Amino acid sequence: MNPCDIIRKKRFGGELTEAEIRAFVDGVVDGSFADYQISALLMAICINGMTDRETLALTLAMAKSGDTLDLSDIPGVKADKHSTGGVGDTTSLVLVPLVACCGLKMAKMSGRGLGFTGGTLDKMESIPGMKVEMDIESFKRQVTEVGCAIIGQTAELAPADKTLYALRDVTSTVDCMPLVVSSILSKKIAAGCDVVVLDTKAGSGAIMDTMEKSRKLAEMMVRIGNLSGKRFSALLTDMDQPLGNYIGNALEVEEAIDILAGRAGGDLKEVALTLGAHILRNAGAAPSVEAGIEMLDQKIASGEGLKKFAEMIAAQGGDPRVCEDTGLLPKAKSLIDIPADRDGYISSMTTSDIGNAAKVLGAGRERKTDALDLSVGIVMKVRVGDQVKKGDPLCTLHVGEKSDRVGAYNLMKRSIHISPEKPEKKPLILAVVE
Amino acid sequence: MNPCDIIRKKRFGGELTEAEIRAFVDGVVDGSFADYQISALLMAICINGMTDRETLALTLAMAKSGDTLDLSDIPGVKADKHSTGGVGDTTSLVLVPLVACCGLKMAKMSGRGLGFTGGTLDKMESIPGMKVEMDIESFKRQVTEVGCAIIGQTAELAPADKTLYALRDVTSTVDCMPLVVSSILSKKIAAGCDVVVLDTKAGSGAIMDTMEKSRKLAEMMVRIGNLSGKRFSALLTDMDQPLGNYIGNALEVEEAIDILAGRAGGDLKEVALTLGAHILRNAGAAPSVEAGIEMLDQKIASGEGLKKFAEMIAAQGGDPRVCEDTGLLPKAKSLIDIPADRDGYISSMTTSDIGNAAKVLGAGRERKTDALDLSVGIVMKVRVGDQVKKGDPLCTLHVGEKSDRVGAYNLMKRSIHISPEKPEKKPLILAVVE
Repeated sequence: MNPCDIIRKKRFGGELTEAEIRAFVDGVVDGSFADYQISALLMAICINGMTDRETLALTLAMAKSGDTLDLSDIPGVKADKHSTGGVGDTTSLVLVPLVACCGLKMAKMSGRGLGFTGGTLDKMESIPGMKVEMDIESFKRQVTEVGCAIIGQTAELAPADKTLYALRDVTSTVDCMPLVVSSILSKKIAAGCDVVVLDTKAGSGAIMDTMEKSRKLAEMMVRIGNLSGKRFSALLTDMDQPLGNYIGNALEVEEAIDILAGRAGGDLKEVALTLGAHILRNAGAAPSVEAGIEMLDQKIASGEGLKKFAEMIAAQGGDPRVCEDTGLLPKAKSLIDIPADRDGYISSMTTSDIGNAAKVLGAGRERKTDALDLSVGIVMKVRVGDQVKKGDPLCTLHVGEKSDRVGAYNLMKRSIHISPEKPEKKPLILAVVE
Repeated sequence: MNPCDIIRKKRFGGELTEAEIRAFVDGVVDGSFADYQISALLMAICINGMTDRETLALTLAMAKSGDTLDLSDIPGVKADKHSTGGVGDTTSLVLVPLVACCGLKMAKMSGRGLGFTGGTLDKMESIPGMKVEMDIESFKRQVTEVGCAIIGQTAELAPADKTLYALRDVTSTVDCMPLVVSSILSKKIAAGCDVVVLDTKAGSGAIMDTMEKSRKLAEMMVRIGNLSGKRFSALLTDMDQPLGNYIGNALEVEEAIDILAGRAGGDLKEVALTLGAHILRNAGAAPSVEAGIEMLDQKIASGEGLKKFAEMIAAQGGDPRVCEDTGLLPKAKSLIDIPADRDGYISSMTTSDIGNAAKVLGAGRERKTDALDLSVGIVMKVRVGDQVKKGDPLCTLHVGEKSDRVGAYNLMKRSIHISPEKPEKKPLILAVVE
C-alpha cells in the first residue's frame, strides 16, 4: 500500500480502512512511511478528523505495534489508571495501595514525562532506595503477591506512539482528539489490564483548551476504549488550581502519605478515591461508586492503605519507614514564603504558571536528559475561595541550590489572583463518563 | 518566528502574514524548517487553502529565495512563456523565433523535466551540435543580438521550489492551487521577463483533474502574476488529444520546423500562434490578439521565422541546416504502423496513455538520471473526429533498440477510441484569461 494513496485519501476527507491504518502504523514502525509523510497524514487527520471506526483501528494497530503484556496468569481483575496530566496531581500514589487493599490487582507502568514536575516514577524515586526498573516476571510476581506495583516501562509498549508523539510535538498536531485518544489508549491496551479509569483534566494547563473539548475527549476515550473490549470510565476534573497542595516530587509523596495516614483530605483525596471507586465498581468489587468510596475510606481509617503502600515500597527496595516518618524524604535547602499583597479572596489561579514555577525550581524537566532536584517544589497555603489578609502566606517555595528562585517567585506572584469578591464555588469533578 | 506557531495558525484556517510566509520560505532554504514541518504546513495549506494575499506573498518569497535575473540592460520588452505540460506540446520552438522576428526579446530558460517526453532542452539537443548550457552574460548577449535564446537553468532560480516540490511529490500535495501557482510563478518572476504567457492544459494528463479546476488555476495564475507587477495572460487549452501530431524529441523539432516552413498547420500551430500573439499584444507590439496572429503568420509566409530559428541554432553551436533538411535530425531504427481494427470515427483519446507510450519507447524519463533516445516517438495519423476504415494507420511508432515496443503498442491500441458515431467537435482553446 502506497503512503501517498493513504495520505491523499485523508487529505480529501475519506475514511481510511482498517488495512490502510495498519499499513500506516506498520510503516511508522518499519520506516517505510517517511517522517514528512507521517506529518502530512497527521495534519490531514487533525483537520479532517477520524471516525470512531478509524480511531479504534488506529488505537488497536498502535497497541499491537510492539510488545503487549499478557497478565492473564495473575489471578483477579487487573486495573490501571491514566491521567492527562496536571499540577499537584499524584492520585496514583493514593489510589494504587487503597484499591489493592480491596483485592484488585493494580499493575501500573508509568513514564517519567516532561513537564511541570517529574512523572510518577520520579516521585517514587524520591523514596530512599526505591527501584522502579523491574523485569516483567518480577513485576507480575509482585502484583500477584503484594497486589500492586508501579514500575517504569521496560517492555516496548506501543512504539509507534513514540515516533508519532515526537512528530506531533514539533508540527502543532498534539491537541487532535483521535490522535490523543489513540496515543493514550494504545499504551493502556498494550499494558494488558482489564479495567482502566481515566482522569481527564479541564482548565488552564490541560491538554484541551476548552471545557467542551475536554469533555469530548473523555467521552471519546471511554467509547473507543470500551470498543476495544476493555472496561473504561473517565472523570472530567477541574485543573483551574493545583489538585493537591503539595507540588514537587518528594513533596507529592509526602502529601500522598498524609492522605493514606488519614491526616490530610481535600481535593486530591476526593479525586483519588473517586477514581479508585470507579475501578472497584467497574471490576464488580463494589456495587456502586458511592459504596466504593466508602470501602476506600475504610482502608484509610483502618491503616491498611498505608500498610499496603509500605509493603509495595519494601517490595521495590525502598525504605518503608517513610510511611511513618516523612522526614526521611529529601528536604529542600531553604523555604521562602510568598505573602498576599492585599486583603481579599483567592479568585482564581493560573495553574500552568504554578506548574512552570515548580519546573524552574528544578522539579520538572524541559528535556529528557535534564536532572531533577527531587526535594524542591511548592506548598500551597490557600485554595480558590479562601479569604486572605495582606501578609498571609499564599504558598511556600521549597528551594534548592540550582533553583531559579526569582523566576519561580514571579511566576507564583502572578498566578494567584486576589479580588474583593468571594468567587463562586466550582465543582471539582465536572463530569463522569462511563 | 517558531515553525510550530506558523503551522498551528494554518491548521486552524488562519491567514498567514507576509512575515510568517517569508519566515517559512527562509526556513525551507536554510533548513530551520524541518522536512516534516514543511510537509505538515503544505498539507494544512492544501486543505485550508490560501488567500490571494498569502499566495502572492508565497510567490514573491519563493522568487526571492535564490538568484534573480536582471534583464534590464537588454533593450526592449523581454517575454517568456510557460506550459503546464502536455503531449506533443512543442509550442516554444514555434513561437520563440516568430515573436523574436517581431522585435520582442524571448529570453527563455527551460528545464529537462520528467514525463512523457523530454523537456524543451532535450528537444533542442536533438539538433546536431546544439548547446543549451550557457553563462548568463552570453545568454543576455545572444538575446540582445539574435532576439531569442532557449537555455538550461544555470542560475539557481527559486531554490525553495525545488525543496517544496520534492516534498509535495511524495506527500500527495501536488495538485493544490496556491502551491502550483507559487511554484510556477516564482520561477518566472525570478527569470526577470516583463511579459509572460501561460498555457494551462485541461483534459486527461493535465495537472488539475477537472476542467473547472484547470480554469481556476489559469485565473489564479494571471491574477497573482499581475499583482506581482508583471504582465500575465493565460490560455486554457484542450489536452484530450496530443497537441501536435509528432511526439518525441527530434520528432517534435521536425514538426516545429514544418510549421515554421509553412508546410504544416493544425492545433499545434494554432496554439503556438495564439500564445505568441498574446505576448505581442501584452507587450504593445500588436493592437490585438487577432492582429498578432496575422503578424506571426506573415513571419511564416516570409520565411523570416524559420531564418530566425536557424540563427538561434547557429548562435548556440547547432547545425542550422536542419531547418532546410530535417533528415539531419536523428532517425529511429524502425517504424511500426498501428492500424484501426474497425470502421468508425475517432471518438476520443487518452492522452496520458499516449504520453506513456512515448516514454516506454525511450522519449521520456522516469528518473532524472535516465538516458533518452532522442530519435524515438510516435507520429499520429488521426485526430479526434476523423473517419477511419479498418486497416487505416492510426499512428506510426518510431522505435529504437531499447524501446519497449510491445508496451508502447498496447498503450497506443487502448488510447485511441473508435466509435460508430461522429463525436461533437470540442474547441481547442477553451478559454482566454487576461
